[in-house]
Amino acid sequence: MSVPLRERHARPGKVPKLTETELAAGLPEIPAWKVEGGARITRTLKFRDFVALMKFVDRMAALAEAEQHHPDFTVHYSQLDVTLWTHDAGGLTENDLILAAKIDALPADT
Amino acid sequence: MSVPLRERHARPGKVPKLTETELAAGLPEIPAWKVEGGARITRTLKFRDFVALMKFVDRMAALAEAEQHHPDFTVHYSQLDVTLWTHDAGGLTENDLILAAKIDALPADT
Repeated sequence: MSVPLRERHARPGKVPKLTETELAAGLPEIPAWKVEGGARITRTLKFRDFVALMKFVDRMAALAEAEQHHPDFTVHYSQLDVTLWTHDAGGLTENDLILAAKIDALPADT
Repeated sequence: MSVPLRERHARPGKVPKLTETELAAGLPEIPAWKVEGGARITRTLKFRDFVALMKFVDRMAALAEAEQHHPDFTVHYSQLDVTLWTHDAGGLTENDLILAAKIDALPADT
């Protein structure tokens, strides 16, 4: 039995792009995320208001720094759109799945 | 002589859309911003890294709450794209120009 994604840590340096089989194996652990064109995963989160959203963004930013893997994100008042992919790999790596699972585990005052 | 944009405050409630003349009169005070389709203004800011960017985002968020006028923004690691418009007015109002000028006045560790 493998270690759950949310308990792993992003690896530094060059990380290989996931095969379709590896990606498909990881997705059940992050059901809130959608795959876009096989190359990115995205999740939209809605909050009570801008203040609640910013609390979450600050937690997500601290996580990103701790893992040294950073999501792209867009804020529209109380809606947060998060996109994960690995620039160096030109697509999705295990680091993206790990960060997605860790983002899902963050407390959110929605 | 009118009060500079950055010293004004966003007004609550329904604010009228700017005329082309009013918009043109305000733009010299916010030269870093680009008008998109006459309906939005955007500015891109680049930072040293994600941590420097997030410090600025937190300052911008506090400003937005204080003015009760909120920018849309997108973060790509060390690049921040900010968009201002007034949803209720279906375009640009004085509140957008005021917030733009106040964002320009925020300290940034670029």
